[in-house]
Amino acid sequence: MKNFIFENATKVYFGQGCVKEYLACLTRKYGDTVMLCYGGGSIKENGIYEEITSILIAAGKTVVEFSGIMSNPTYEKVMEGAKLARENHVGLMLGVGGGSVMDCCKAISIAARYEGDVWADFWAAPGIFEFEPLPLGVIVTVAGTGSECNGGAVITNEKLKVKTGRDYPACNPKFALLDPTYTYSVPQFQMVSGGFDILSHIMEIYFSQPDEDNVSDDIAEALMRGVIRDLRSAILDPEDYTARSNLMWEATMAENRIIKLGKRTDFECHQMEHQLVAYTNCNHGAGLAVLHPVYYRHIYKEGLAKFKRFAICVWGISTDGKTDEEIALAGIEALEDFIVEIGLPVTLQDLGVEKDIDLKTIADSCAIVSGSYKKLTHEEIFSIFQECF
Amino acid sequence: MKNFIFENATKVYFGQGCVKEYLACLTRKYGDTVMLCYGGGSIKENGIYEEITSILIAAGKTVVEFSGIMSNPTYEKVMEGAKLARENHVGLMLGVGGGSVMDCCKAISIAARYEGDVWADFWAAPGIFEFEPLPLGVIVTVAGTGSECNGGAVITNEKLKVKTGRDYPACNPKFALLDPTYTYSVPQFQMVSGGFDILSHIMEIYFSQPDEDNVSDDIAEALMRGVIRDLRSAILDPEDYTARSNLMWEATMAENRIIKLGKRTDFECHQMEHQLVAYTNCNHGAGLAVLHPVYYRHIYKEGLAKFKRFAICVWGISTDGKTDEEIALAGIEALEDFIVEIGLPVTLQDLGVEKDIDLKTIADSCAIVSGSYKKLTHEEIFSIFQECF
Repeated sequence: MKNFIFENATKVYFGQGCVKEYLACLTRKYGDTVMLCYGGGSIKENGIYEEITSILIAAGKTVVEFSGIMSNPTYEKVMEGAKLARENHVGLMLGVGGGSVMDCCKAISIAARYEGDVWADFWAAPGIFEFEPLPLGVIVTVAGTGSECNGGAVITNEKLKVKTGRDYPACNPKFALLDPTYTYSVPQFQMVSGGFDILSHIMEIYFSQPDEDNVSDDIAEALMRGVIRDLRSAILDPEDYTARSNLMWEATMAENRIIKLGKRTDFECHQMEHQLVAYTNCNHGAGLAVLHPVYYRHIYKEGLAKFKRFAICVWGISTDGKTDEEIALAGIEALEDFIVEIGLPVTLQDLGVEKDIDLKTIADSCAIVSGSYKKLTHEEIFSIFQECF
Repeated sequence: MKNFIFENATKVYFGQGCVKEYLACLTRKYGDTVMLCYGGGSIKENGIYEEITSILIAAGKTVVEFSGIMSNPTYEKVMEGAKLARENHVGLMLGVGGGSVMDCCKAISIAARYEGDVWADFWAAPGIFEFEPLPLGVIVTVAGTGSECNGGAVITNEKLKVKTGRDYPACNPKFALLDPTYTYSVPQFQMVSGGFDILSHIMEIYFSQPDEDNVSDDIAEALMRGVIRDLRSAILDPEDYTARSNLMWEATMAENRIIKLGKRTDFECHQMEHQLVAYTNCNHGAGLAVLHPVYYRHIYKEGLAKFKRFAICVWGISTDGKTDEEIALAGIEALEDFIVEIGLPVTLQDLGVEKDIDLKTIADSCAIVSGSYKKLTHEEIFSIFQECF
């Protein structure tokens, strides 16, 4: 294990019925006014909104609503939320949704309390920032980003055309309520795409330096095998509680910093996918599904031992009479077969991207990162995008 | 995953040089006086005492020493420490050592601040206790108990002849400094016995209800395979940093509550071993090594599917032409072979226990617990002890 510092202050309440059991009690110490933050309103259709607001009202809270949080939340939306929180002397923000809602809430929690220029002093500057944000609690309705147990938020500044993110420990939610049955109403494609996002997070961390035996990689393999097993079960029966509850906790475990300890990750595939989203507005998990196998065929030679281990330990590839390269490639093929099996796209056409799109411009807009086995050039990213067609 | 609540507030600083780099800064906000707590004085021989005190003095701290913390720390020792902490207006306790030191420090951290009868109100009563203990930081010198990232403490009240323990989240250390090179000077037998203690913690949790697929068991298997691999490497080369650092983090991961989530553990083998220690003063890890295989042969039929999974996933036992029982037993045999391989005892004689010991009395003194596959009776515990000869 390479040196690391670890902390994670979020208190997790997990399981069927946890919102009903704990929400009122958890809001008690945060004043009279709760700002309820959510997205496009699906929580009004599945009964979750009703359940939560009735608990808050019965607890004597004044509820201020902040809705319409979009995918890839904008800095403008963040500032709108911050203004609302200040004007209403909000004591607690309660984010209900998936990664976009949680990320937006974390950014609001800083902006609502900070007196200076929050873009310049926090988002644009990677330096030290000692500051206590507005308290935030979250109720998760989609298993995927794992944003519930970290301080990470990705925010898009449309005016400056910058999408940026950082994991600031003080932004960890004070509490996270995770009821797996809240994810039952997520449509199958969204469920599968969120499930692949979990797998992608783990792979991005696993395929990174350093590569000596370490506990983080051991746990990552266990989680990957679990996600594969549980996603298969959840597709067969979306109300398989064992599978859905495992997926929900695997999403958290992938992003609560535990499997990143001692690792130097770069999330290169996510970096490329973010730019694809920016130009095509494709689904996040589906975009990752298209990119991962192609990307891995570009880098596996530089990380051969690890790709061989991935093939054997995650996909159960037999080594009989095969070269290391053949084993590694069989692992990548198994990943691709799994993507097809769960119904995600493997080409940009499948993803709905038009043939005449300017892939060169998208490739050139990608950040060049370093941490994985190979630092890609813009030319190589362009090749990857072309091969995805 | 069954319902659970999870929190872990300890901030971990991990890696070679972490004490030198962070200790002074970490003590800053806790006043002028640090109470340095340790055991029999081995830290004075290996240079750790010297390093720590010079950092504290350079940081301008007044250092109050509390030494001589014994294995199985007594309530009397706890009250002695509490008195010293009060008299000196200690702002921070710093525990340096293994599980006994850390457990004793946690108990002192409550007793030093609590005005009532701490035995009656905390240790004897399992109820709700809202109370902020004296802040505690720990520096770990032995990989084993994993006490650094939980609020658990086991304390012996000699007057009442009771050994009791509980995991109280407010007793989690504020910070834990884990430098794997600090464990290099631990004698080989202690290192191996501590390593087996880690494996034992994971097995106790793994072999418990419920038994449906769950993330905790998946991670537990990854950790067990890691401990086996790393203990083998550390025996070959005690200064193998990869192995020693992995063992140190595996010890923490076994006891930071993560693999207990959704599980109903009973630590039955530990319960029996505690009583063996009480009557024979045998080494903790070595006592567990003697008990585990015999105990598992008594319970495997009630948890057959899990023992089969253990054999395949942890020990790589092939299933070809074998019945489930044969596979399960081969896994227990592999565990026993491993115990012999790493040089730990497999019989009570090897452990140095006299033939004329009253095993019946020891068996009758064991708590009857429930959570694993089979609730043992005092008669069956007596049989297990006899078979250990």
